[in-house]
Formats: sequence, C-alpha cells, structure tokens
Amino acid sequence: MSGTLYLVGVGPGDPDLLTLRAARIIAAVQVVAWPTTGEGAALALAIAGAHVAKEAQRLPVAIPMAVDPVPAQAAYDAAAETIGAHLAAGRDVAWLCEGDPLFYGSAIQLLSRLGDTAPVEVVPGVTSLTAAAAVARVPLAVRNETVKVLPAPLSDALLAPELATNATIAIIKVGRHLERIRKLLAGAGRADGAVVVEHATTARERITPLAAFPPTGEAGGAVPGGSAPYFSIILSPGAER
Amino acid sequence: MSGTLYLVGVGPGDPDLLTLRAARIIAAVQVVAWPTTGEGAALALAIAGAHVAKEAQRLPVAIPMAVDPVPAQAAYDAAAETIGAHLAAGRDVAWLCEGDPLFYGSAIQLLSRLGDTAPVEVVPGVTSLTAAAAVARVPLAVRNETVKVLPAPLSDALLAPELATNATIAIIKVGRHLERIRKLLAGAGRADGAVVVEHATTARERITPLAAFPPTGEAGGAVPGGSAPYFSIILSPGAER
Repeated sequence: MSGTLYLVGVGPGDPDLLTLRAARIIAAVQVVAWPTTGEGAALALAIAGAHVAKEAQRLPVAIPMAVDPVPAQAAYDAAAETIGAHLAAGRDVAWLCEGDPLFYGSAIQLLSRLGDTAPVEVVPGVTSLTAAAAVARVPLAVRNETVKVLPAPLSDALLAPELATNATIAIIKVGRHLERIRKLLAGAGRADGAVVVEHATTARERITPLAAFPPTGEAGGAVPGGSAPYFSIILSPGAER
Repeated sequence: MSGTLYLVGVGPGDPDLLTLRAARIIAAVQVVAWPTTGEGAALALAIAGAHVAKEAQRLPVAIPMAVDPVPAQAAYDAAAETIGAHLAAGRDVAWLCEGDPLFYGSAIQLLSRLGDTAPVEVVPGVTSLTAAAAVARVPLAVRNETVKVLPAPLSDALLAPELATNATIAIIKVGRHLERIRKLLAGAGRADGAVVVEHATTARERITPLAAFPPTGEAGGAVPGGSAPYFSIILSPGAER
C-alpha cells in the first residue's frame, strides 16, 4: 500500500500563518522533505520545523538556483526517486512549500513527477501575495476589479501592455529588475501609489513606497544601485480607487 | 484605550484551512462579527464558528447582495459605527472574512471606514483561488508565468484581450455569465484545458472540465440553462505548459 504525498503550503513566513491542516499533517507523517538553495537556506523548514515529529525522517533537497534549468530539473528527478521509494514502502511524505504549493511552488515539480504513481493531496497555503497586501494594507481587489501577478524577469514588451489597465498589479521576483520595473510603472502612470513589500510577515519585513525605495541610511534589504531582494513584491493598486 | 480590529481571513471553506493565528485571535476577542447575505447565509461563521469563545458577543451583519451598491454601503456604514463603538470601549473585535480579507473581501469596506481610527491587523487567509487550484491539481504558475484573476461580470471588450496571452487565467464570480465566458475562452483557444471548480474544499465541492459543464443527471451545483454558482472559479492554465 502506497503512502500519501502531501504537498503542503506553509505560508509566507510567519509560523502562525500555517493552516491547522498543514500543522496536523506535518506532525503526523513519517518523512518530511523540503527544498534548500545551494547556500542551504530552507525557509519552508524554518516556518514549519516546530511541527515536525522527533521520530520523522528528514529529507532536505538541494535545488540549484540558476538561470539554467537543467541542474534543478535533475535535482527534482532525484528527489522524486527518493520520495517515490518512501511512498512505495508505505510511508507518508510531506513536501514543505513556502506560500502555496501551486502558486510558483516547487511542489509543481513533484506533482508532475509523482502525481500519477501515488495518492497526492495538495494543501493550499497563504501566499506571499495576500500576505504582502495584508501587512501593507493594500486591498488587492474589490467588486469587479482585476488582479495580475507579473514576474519581473519578463520582458518590457510583455510587461508594458499588462500594466496599461485598471487592474491591481503585483510584481514578483523583483531583485535586479527593480529600476526597469520602476520605469515601466512610471510609464503606465503607476509609480505614485506603488509600494515595495520585502519579506512579508517575517522579522525582516519592510514596507516602502516605491518612490522612496531603496531607503537611505538603513541596513539590510535593499542593495545600493537599485536592486531589491528576490522575496519582494511591488503592489500597484487598481486605478479605479 | 481602543480595542484592536482584526480583519481575519478564515480560508475558502474547510475549517481545517484556518491559520493558527486566525484560530487564536477568533478565540481571544470579546466581539466576533461577520457578514451575512439577505438570506442569512454566513459562510465565514460556518467555517470559524467552532473557535468563537462562549462568552464572546456575536454580531452578524446583513449585507444586501444587489447590483445597486447603495444599500450595501449603508449596511457597512452602520456596521462600522457599531464596531467602532466596541473598539472605543476597549473591546477587541474580529471581523470574519471568507478567503483572504483583502482579496475581494468585505474587510476592505471596514478598513476604509475604521483604519484611521483604531489599531487594525489584517490576518491573511487561504484564498478560493489557490484552494481551487489545489483540489483540481491545476498549477497556477511556474517559473515566470503570469496569473490573472478576472471577474466574469466584466464586459467582453475588457475580458477578451486579457485572455489572449500565455497567462494562467482564473475567472471568478461566474454565475449567470457561464455561457458568455465559455465563448470567450473558446475564442482564445482556451476551452479545452479549462476546468470549473465549485465550492472548493467544502462538502459541495465539484470539479468538472468546462467542456463537460454542467454535468447531466447530477443534482445540485449547476443550474439548467448554463449558469454556475457564484462561488465557482474557472481555471484556464497557461499556454506554455
């Protein structure tokens, strides 16, 4: 009898934003796995670690963070093989995902590799999108407004037309694209109301109007020369409000 | 000393998808308030009711559901006055919101009315968007894909250009707009992969390919003639996958 693979969203950063279901599953499974970067950072484990049972097997999976997708795909292949062996032996496995599993999540890689071979349950989580809105107190949408989530690495040719609407815009994966995004938002008449939210709901959280970013004389967060952390979101509210 | 207003997301429907923080706050406050429809339905309370303290004051707020926004605005005005009096008397108040408070949530109406007069904390929640994706196992976005959330009541002229991209599309508030949305999606070459998710994570949950919706010979859910419940989402995955 196969074990079940739980793809568990652990929320944006504050351990208190785990769901009751996520906490219960993480405490109950025989194997807990999570992605780490090449540098060993493991935000998902930091968020949910307190719920992992003492006797559970722990399975960190290093995923190379590079533009070239081949090494990361190979790492997911290997992880799927290891996790698949646990499932085949009847052990339940929880894969911890920052935010929500299917919203830019690593879980999608496991779902595509293991979804047809074992029972899989996806446990949705609080995304960094709504967490950023909550801490910045920026409504994402009311009534019949539209919301668009746009990754900053997309080209100007793809981004510019998407900004030219009344939608609320969330730009994710800002990083080194900050100055280019700033110009695009200004060109769409959106620079004034936009806000940069870094590391929402964590100790490193910071909320800054885009016009004042990066703040001067402050440590951490922004890098001189105009980049922003990868885990930052720029929110630009809809034009109708 | 003013009490604190907590705008609490209670998630999409399954009480297990409350966050630890939401459950703790709901159990601790002196006053718990929630919106009800004219018919008395109160999904937010049904989700979170088990956590409300016995001694807490309970404050249902009837919000007229009509195209005319004036009666609803008057109801929010009155609710803000009542809640404001509790806060001024030093009582903490939790306003329960289905899903996330700032993602098409009633909490936005209270934030705009009370946000400057009392301490407010927004507790983000799991949205029906990621819940629908989880139960349908439809990844919302990987890598640099875009996600768009589009309310079905928008006009064809506004919707059609938004569909003509590689983005993952989520159509919300489908209801009587189903057949119009079906035609729009087909026109954008998106009819085949689209799925209708009704009442995600609740006992009434149902997942149906759009091409097979409404299912014949089944009770509940779809209404003959081609409409879908208000609490349904159509997911149309990005074209790159």
